[in-house]
Amino acid sequence: MLSFHNAFIDAQPASQLTQRFQTVRAQTERLIEPLSAEDCQLQSMPDASPAKWHLAHVTWFFETFVLERFEPDFKPFDAGFRVLFNSYYNGVGDKYPRPRRGLISRPSLPQVLAYRRQVNARVLELISRTDEADRMQLAQLIKLGLQHEQQHQELLLTDIQHALSFNPQCPAYAGRWPLASTAPQPVRWHAYDGGLVQHGFDAGLDGDFAFDNETPRHPAYVAPFELASRLLTNGEMLEFISDEGYRRPELWLAMGWDWVQAGQHDLPLYWQGEAGNYRHFTLQGLQEVDPNTPACHLSYFEADALARWTGARLPTEFEWELAARLLPASSAKSGNFVETGAFHPLPQQQARVEAPAQLLGDVWEWTQSNYNAYPGYQPWEGLVGEYNGKFMCNQFVLRGGSCATPQSHVRASYRNFFPPDAQWQFSGVRLARDIQG
Amino acid sequence: MLSFHNAFIDAQPASQLTQRFQTVRAQTERLIEPLSAEDCQLQSMPDASPAKWHLAHVTWFFETFVLERFEPDFKPFDAGFRVLFNSYYNGVGDKYPRPRRGLISRPSLPQVLAYRRQVNARVLELISRTDEADRMQLAQLIKLGLQHEQQHQELLLTDIQHALSFNPQCPAYAGRWPLASTAPQPVRWHAYDGGLVQHGFDAGLDGDFAFDNETPRHPAYVAPFELASRLLTNGEMLEFISDEGYRRPELWLAMGWDWVQAGQHDLPLYWQGEAGNYRHFTLQGLQEVDPNTPACHLSYFEADALARWTGARLPTEFEWELAARLLPASSAKSGNFVETGAFHPLPQQQARVEAPAQLLGDVWEWTQSNYNAYPGYQPWEGLVGEYNGKFMCNQFVLRGGSCATPQSHVRASYRNFFPPDAQWQFSGVRLARDIQG
Amino acid sequence: MLSFHNAFIDAQPASQLTQRFQTVRAQTERLIEPLSAEDCQLQSMPDASPAKWHLAHVTWFFETFVLERFEPDFKPFDAGFRVLFNSYYNGVGDKYPRPRRGLISRPSLPQVLAYRRQVNARVLELISRTDEADRMQLAQLIKLGLQHEQQHQELLLTDIQHALSFNPQCPAYAGRWPLASTAPQPVRWHAYDGGLVQHGFDAGLDGDFAFDNETPRHPAYVAPFELASRLLTNGEMLEFISDEGYRRPELWLAMGWDWVQAGQHDLPLYWQGEAGNYRHFTLQGLQEVDPNTPACHLSYFEADALARWTGARLPTEFEWELAARLLPASSAKSGNFVETGAFHPLPQQQARVEAPAQLLGDVWEWTQSNYNAYPGYQPWEGLVGEYNGKFMCNQFVLRGGSCATPQSHVRASYRNFFPPDAQWQFSGVRLARDIQG
Amino acid sequence: MLSFHNAFIDAQPASQLTQRFQTVRAQTERLIEPLSAEDCQLQSMPDASPAKWHLAHVTWFFETFVLERFEPDFKPFDAGFRVLFNSYYNGVGDKYPRPRRGLISRPSLPQVLAYRRQVNARVLELISRTDEADRMQLAQLIKLGLQHEQQHQELLLTDIQHALSFNPQCPAYAGRWPLASTAPQPVRWHAYDGGLVQHGFDAGLDGDFAFDNETPRHPAYVAPFELASRLLTNGEMLEFISDEGYRRPELWLAMGWDWVQAGQHDLPLYWQGEAGNYRHFTLQGLQEVDPNTPACHLSYFEADALARWTGARLPTEFEWELAARLLPASSAKSGNFVETGAFHPLPQQQARVEAPAQLLGDVWEWTQSNYNAYPGYQPWEGLVGEYNGKFMCNQFVLRGGSCATPQSHVRASYRNFFPPDAQWQFSGVRLARDIQG
Ligand SMILES: [Fe+3]
Ligand SMILES: [Fe+3]
Ligand SMILES: [Fe+3]
Ligand SMILES: [Fe+3]
Repeated sequence: MLSFHNAFIDAQPASQLTQRFQTVRAQTERLIEPLSAEDCQLQSMPDASPAKWHLAHVTWFFETFVLERFEPDFKPFDAGFRVLFNSYYNGVGDKYPRPRRGLISRPSLPQVLAYRRQVNARVLELISRTDEADRMQLAQLIKLGLQHEQQHQELLLTDIQHALSFNPQCPAYAGRWPLASTAPQPVRWHAYDGGLVQHGFDAGLDGDFAFDNETPRHPAYVAPFELASRLLTNGEMLEFISDEGYRRPELWLAMGWDWVQAGQHDLPLYWQGEAGNYRHFTLQGLQEVDPNTPACHLSYFEADALARWTGARLPTEFEWELAARLLPASSAKSGNFVETGAFHPLPQQQARVEAPAQLLGDVWEWTQSNYNAYPGYQPWEGLVGEYNGKFMCNQFVLRGGSCATPQSHVRASYRNFFPPDAQWQFSGVRLARDIQG
Repeated sequence: MLSFHNAFIDAQPASQLTQRFQTVRAQTERLIEPLSAEDCQLQSMPDASPAKWHLAHVTWFFETFVLERFEPDFKPFDAGFRVLFNSYYNGVGDKYPRPRRGLISRPSLPQVLAYRRQVNARVLELISRTDEADRMQLAQLIKLGLQHEQQHQELLLTDIQHALSFNPQCPAYAGRWPLASTAPQPVRWHAYDGGLVQHGFDAGLDGDFAFDNETPRHPAYVAPFELASRLLTNGEMLEFISDEGYRRPELWLAMGWDWVQAGQHDLPLYWQGEAGNYRHFTLQGLQEVDPNTPACHLSYFEADALARWTGARLPTEFEWELAARLLPASSAKSGNFVETGAFHPLPQQQARVEAPAQLLGDVWEWTQSNYNAYPGYQPWEGLVGEYNGKFMCNQFVLRGGSCATPQSHVRASYRNFFPPDAQWQFSGVRLARDIQG
Repeated sequence: MLSFHNAFIDAQPASQLTQRFQTVRAQTERLIEPLSAEDCQLQSMPDASPAKWHLAHVTWFFETFVLERFEPDFKPFDAGFRVLFNSYYNGVGDKYPRPRRGLISRPSLPQVLAYRRQVNARVLELISRTDEADRMQLAQLIKLGLQHEQQHQELLLTDIQHALSFNPQCPAYAGRWPLASTAPQPVRWHAYDGGLVQHGFDAGLDGDFAFDNETPRHPAYVAPFELASRLLTNGEMLEFISDEGYRRPELWLAMGWDWVQAGQHDLPLYWQGEAGNYRHFTLQGLQEVDPNTPACHLSYFEADALARWTGARLPTEFEWELAARLLPASSAKSGNFVETGAFHPLPQQQARVEAPAQLLGDVWEWTQSNYNAYPGYQPWEGLVGEYNGKFMCNQFVLRGGSCATPQSHVRASYRNFFPPDAQWQFSGVRLARDIQG
Repeated sequence: MLSFHNAFIDAQPASQLTQRFQTVRAQTERLIEPLSAEDCQLQSMPDASPAKWHLAHVTWFFETFVLERFEPDFKPFDAGFRVLFNSYYNGVGDKYPRPRRGLISRPSLPQVLAYRRQVNARVLELISRTDEADRMQLAQLIKLGLQHEQQHQELLLTDIQHALSFNPQCPAYAGRWPLASTAPQPVRWHAYDGGLVQHGFDAGLDGDFAFDNETPRHPAYVAPFELASRLLTNGEMLEFISDEGYRRPELWLAMGWDWVQAGQHDLPLYWQGEAGNYRHFTLQGLQEVDPNTPACHLSYFEADALARWTGARLPTEFEWELAARLLPASSAKSGNFVETGAFHPLPQQQARVEAPAQLLGDVWEWTQSNYNAYPGYQPWEGLVGEYNGKFMCNQFVLRGGSCATPQSHVRASYRNFFPPDAQWQFSGVRLARDIQG
C-alpha cells in the first residue's frame, strides 16, 4: 500500500472530497480570467512557467498520479502530454526542457482547458465509484494533487507578474490598486522564552495534510528571542536605499555582494525611477511605491542585508513556527491571502498588541534556516517521492504565506523554500533578535 | 529632396502602386492563416522573430518612413509601437530588445491586425491624395516598404518553422507534402568565359527597384569557371554523412570545425533519426528525407565543407550573377518561389541542357563572397540609410531566392546575406569550379 | 580594545609565540620546495590560487592586520601589494580580481620570498618589543595570522594538485607513493545516545584559539544516531560506479543531478581510464586507484549520492562533533595530517573497536549541515570581521581535517566549509544513520 | 615530391640557409631577454600564448615538419611535445587546448631552451648532410619554418604586452620610451589610376618566399582612388573621442556597435585616464598618449568607425598593394620594424612628397578586404596545408607590417589577417577615398 508516512490521517466522505476538488480546480481557472491565450503562453525566465503550462501541469499531476493508478482502463488524454507537462519527475520519464515551456503554442489554451475538463470528469467519476476501502488511498493522492495545484496557483500569479513586467506598456493583471495607505505602528518586540520545543507537522494542530518536508515532528532547542511586531516596509527600504545600502559591501553576504555587482542591483525587483519618485510594477500595473506597505519581491540577499542594516537579524524557521503556534486561531482567517483579491501586500491595518501582526499572509517571510531535512525525514514512497527531498540544497525556508497564497494552503508547519537570489515571489522581511541572557 | 541615388527610376501611376501595395500587404496576412495567436507569438531564438512582430514591424515601417513623413497631421496608432516594433534603426530611437520579442503578449494579434488595417487605409489615402509632383518620392518609399515586407514574409516562414520545431509534437504549418520524388540528372558543368564584367543593379535589366547594396554597377574581373547544372541534393548530403563528413576536420574551415564541435552538429538542422531512417522537420511537419530533393537549411560552414568534400568549391557572387544574367527570361516565372505553395525545395523536374537548373528559387545559394560594399557604394540618405550598409561584416552573400521568397522580390542583382553559422533559411549549395587555363 | 569575543583566552610568553610564528612560517616555505617559480604561478580555476599568491597573501595578512596596527612608523613593503594580495577584505580596500591571480608574474617568486623575510623580521621585532600589557592583543592577532596561514598551507597543496592536473605529463609534487594497501575492516556502527548537548568551541577542551564561526558554545538537541566505524573507500566508489551510480537521478539531489549532467561527471575528480583500470592524478602523479584507500576529492553532491546509495546518510556536524569529543586524547596525534608526509589519505591501518577510525585526518568529512551562524553568533570586530560570517550561504560544513591539514590546526569544534560542487579538497564520506526509537 | 606550388623558387647554398636559420632562431631568444620564466608563462586570453609556448611551438614546427620528415632515425626530443606544442594541425594529431597554454609550468623555460638547442643542432646537421638533390625540398620547409617563427616573434611581443597589461604595477618590457614627438604633416592625398591590375605574389618582385594565401597572382579591377599621405594619429583619435565617437551608433558597423556596448568600449585598448590626461600601457610601461604618434591597437570596428567619422574609408587590400608596389625600393629598409628597437609606432619623421609615408612598418593597416581565397587558390599539399586556408572566414586583411614585425618578413604581397574585434596587434588606420569619375 502506498504510504504517506502518516501525513494523511483519514479518509473523508466522498462528497467533501468532491467539493474540495471542484473548488480548487475552479479557482485556477478563475485566476486566468484576466489573461489572453497569448498572455498564458509567456515565459520570461527558466524559473517561471507559462500560465498555460501551469494549467496543464497540475492536470497532468492528477492524470499521472491518480487516474493512471486507479482507473482500470487508463488511457491518457494525449500521450505526448506525459513529457510536455512533466515538471521534474525523473521516475515518470522524459521531461520537456523547462526553459522552453514558452515555446509550446500547441496545445492551445482551449485544448488545455478541454484537457482540464476531461480529467476533472474522470477524477470525479473515480471518487464516486471508489468504495470505502480504497478511498483513503485515493483521497490522499487527490489532496496532494490539490495542495500541489494551490502551489501552482501562487506561481501562476508571480510568474505572470514577472512576464508582464517585460512589456514596456506595463499591462495590469488586476484592475484596481487595493491600497489605502496607512502609516504602520513603530516596530515593537515580542519576546519568547524558547527552550526544547517540538517542531513540524502535528495533525492535531495543523489539519489533515502536510508535505513530507514538514515531518517528522521533532524536538529542537530554541534560545530566547524576540520577534518584530510587523513586517519591514517600503519606507524602511527607501531609507536603506538612501543610506547607500546597495553600495556597501559590509551589509551583504559575500555571495549577495557578488549578486549585487553582477546584476547591477540598486533597487528591488520591479522598482524604477529615482529617489523621490520610485514606481514599481505590480499585478495592477505600474504604481507609485507606497512607504507604508510591506516591502516585497526581496531576495534572501536583500532580506539579509536589510536585516543587518537595522542591527537585527532574520528569524530561524523554528522561531517563526514557535511564534505562529501562539497566534489566536482567528489569525489565519483574517490574513491577506489570495482570497482578498488584493494581489499585493497591504499596510498593517490595526495596532495589535498581543502578537506579531501579518505573520500569516501578505509576504512570505525569509528565515535564516536552510531548507534541509528534519531529523528522521523520509521522502514519500513511490513516484511522488521526488516532490520535495531532492531540492534540499542551497535554498532558504520562507514561512507564512503571501497575498498570492490560498488561505487554506498555509499552516504553521508549512515550509516554502527558494534559492537566495529569487526575487519574484512576494517575499519580505520580519526581523528577529537575540535576548541577551 | 530625399535621394535614393537613382535606385528608383520613375514614379508609377497611382493605381499601379495601390494595387501593388494591396497585393503585398494581403499576402502577409494570408501567410498567417494557418497560425493561431499563440503560434504568432513564438520566438525560438534571438535571430528569429514572432510572426506577430513581423506583422507589426513591417507596418511600423510604413508608419514611420511613409506616414510620419508625408501625412500633414501625423499621429501614431500607438506611441509605444515606435519602440516595440523598431528593429534596428538607431536613428529612429530606442528599440525593444530583440531577444525578448516573444515576451510581448500585448498588443494582441487582433490589435496588430487592426494596426495593419489602419495604416493600410492611411497609406492608400496618401497615395490617392498625393499629386504627381510628390508621388515619385512617395512611390519610392512605398516600394521600399513593400520589398521590406517581402523580406519579412520570407523570414516569417523560416522563423515559424524554427519555432514549431521545438514542439515535440511536430505541428505542421502547411497541410500537404508537396514532393513527387524524381531522381535528378547527374551533375554536368556549364562553362563561362568570364572576363571584365559589369556587376550590380541595372534598371534596364533588373526592374524598377534595387536595394542600395546592389549598387553601384561596377566592373569586376571574373576568371573562366564552370557552374554545376543543378543543386546538391539530400542524396549527396547522405553520402557526406556516411563518409564521416561531420567528423573530419580537414573538410571544414577552422571556424566551421569549432562550430561542429561546440554545437555537436552531426546532421543538418531539423534532421533526426539514424542512417537509413532520417526524417526532418519541415513546414509540413516531420517528413522522411527525400534523397532527390535539394539539400537545404545548411550553414555556410556546411555548404563549404560539402563543396570541399566533392572536390569543387562554392561560386563567387559574381560568377553566380554572370550565369543568372544569361538565363532565358522565362526562368524566373517557372521557379519554385513562395507562390507555388510548396514551402519546400523540389526535386529537379526536367533535364535542362542550356543552363543551370534551379538558379532561381528552391534554395538560396551560398556564395564564397563576403557581404561587403561594392566599389563606390553609398548607403541611402536619411533614416533608411541604416537598412543595409551597417551589416557588411562577417556575413556571406547568398543568391537566387528560395521556395519561401516571393517571386517578384528576386532579381539577378539581388544580394541576400547571412552569417556563416545561420542554418534556418532555405539555403543550399550550387557547386562551381575553376577552368584550368 | 580589539575584542575577539573571548575566543582568545590568554597571552603567551613571547618566546612561545616567537617559536610558533617561526615554525608555521617556515613550514609554508618547506611546502614549496618541490615547486619551481613557474609552478608557483599556476592558477587553474578562479577558486584556486597560485602558490606564489598564497605565500604573499598570508604575509600581507600579517603586514595589514599586525604590522600596520602595531608598528609606530609603519611603511608597507610595497604599496601595491595592498591590492594585489588582498583576498576579499572590502574593508581594506580594492582587491586584484581573483580569477587573474595567475597573471601576476611580477613580483617574482624571489621577490615574494624577500617580502616574507622582511615581514617576518618585523613581526619578530614587534613581539620582542611589545610589553606585557599589549602583548595579549598582539598575540591574538598573530595566532589568527598563523591559523590563517595554516589554512592557506592546505589550499596551497590542493590548489597545486589541481593546477598540475592540467599538465598532460602528470608531474608529481611528491616523490613517493605512500600507500601500503591494506584491506579495511567491514563497516561497523557506533551508537550514540544524543540528547541536548553543548556544541562549539570550549577553551578548556579545544585549546587557545578558535575562529568566530565556532562560537558561541550553545545547546542543540541531537537524536540518537550511529556513526560508521570507518570512511567510505575507493572500493565502495568503484561499486557505486559499476552500479551506474553516476547515471541514476534517483540517487542525487536535483542540483547534484544538474551538476552531473552539465559537467558530464561519470567519475570522481582526477580519475581517468575504464572499469578495471582506473587511475587518478595525485600529488604523487598518476597512480592506480587503490580500492582500500578512503575515497576523496568528492563533492557534496557525490558524497550525498554515495550515502543515499548505501542506504545510510551523511552525519550532521553536531553528530560528528559529539563523536569526536568522545575520542581518546591520543587520536589527534596519530592522525594522517600533513606532517606524515603522505599527502594522500591512507587505508585504515588497524582494527579499532572503541571508536570510529580516521575521524581526524585523512579526509575532510562532509556533513549535511549547512554552514550557518550558531545562535548568538557575532563576527569579530574590526577588519577581520570579514573572515567568516559573510560566507554563510550555500556552503556545507566539513569536519576533521585531512592529509593536507596541519595537525595543530584542527580541533573538535573546527568547521571547514565548501560549496556543494567543490571537489578539489581532500573530502570524503563518513556514514551515519538514525537509530529507530 | 612535396610541392609548394611554385611559391619557392630555388634552393639556396647551404651556407646561406644556415646563416638565415641561425639569425632568425637567435632573434627569438633575444626577444625574451627582458623576461623572466614567470613572465614567459603568462597567458592572458585564449587568443594569446605564453612566450614559452611560442619558443617551443616554433621549434616543434621544425621538429615535426623538417626533422621528422628528413632525419633517417628520427626520435622526438619528448614525445609529449607533439601534443603540447601543436597549435592547430589536426593532421598532426591531438592538440593541447589553446586556452590552457598558461597552465604548462613543465617543461620549464630552461627545458624549452634546451629543446631549442637540440633541434637547432639537428637542423643544422641536416642542412650540412643533405645533398644538392634534396636540398631544395629541405630549404623550402626551413624557409617556411623561419617565416613561421617570425610570425610568432611578432605575436610574442603583442602577447606579452597584453599579458603584462593585467599587472596593476604596469611592468615594462623595454626600458626606454622611443619617441621624440614631432607634429605630423597634414594629410594629403595620393591619387592612383587603378585599372585591371595583377595582384599577389610575384617572385621577381617579392623575393624567394610567399605563403600560399598570397597566390596565385591574378588580375583584379581597381577603380581610381586616393590614399592618405600618412597614418591616423592619436591626435585624431582624441578628436574622435571628444566628438563622442564611441557613443554614436551611426559611426559604427552594427556588429561594431554591439561590440562597443557589450565590451563597454570608450577608449582604445590599453588607454586609461580622462580627457586631457590619457595614458596607455605600452611595451615601455604606462606612458602618456602622444598625439603625434600613429594610433594603434585598434580593432577593425574602431578603424572602420574612425574612417567613417573622417568622411573617408579604409582601403581595399588591392588598393594598398598597388600603392606599395610603387614605393621606392629603399622604403622597406627605412621602415620602423622590430629591428629599430622602438617597439612602438613612431611619429612621421619627414615630409615625403612622392609617396604615402609609413606604408611599411609602424602599424598594420586594416583594409576593408575580407580575408579570403584568391581566384584559383590552392592550399599547400601535405600537413602544412592547414597553415592558412582554413582560416578564411570572418577575418579582415591587414597590410604592411608593424613595429613588431621583422623587416625581412614583410613584402608587398603579404597578407596578415585578424577578426574584426582583435585589438592587441599594432594595428592602425590608413585612409582611402574614391575619385569621383
Ligand atoms: Fe508541480
Ligand atoms: Fe525589417
Ligand atoms: Fe586568506
Ligand atoms: Fe604557429
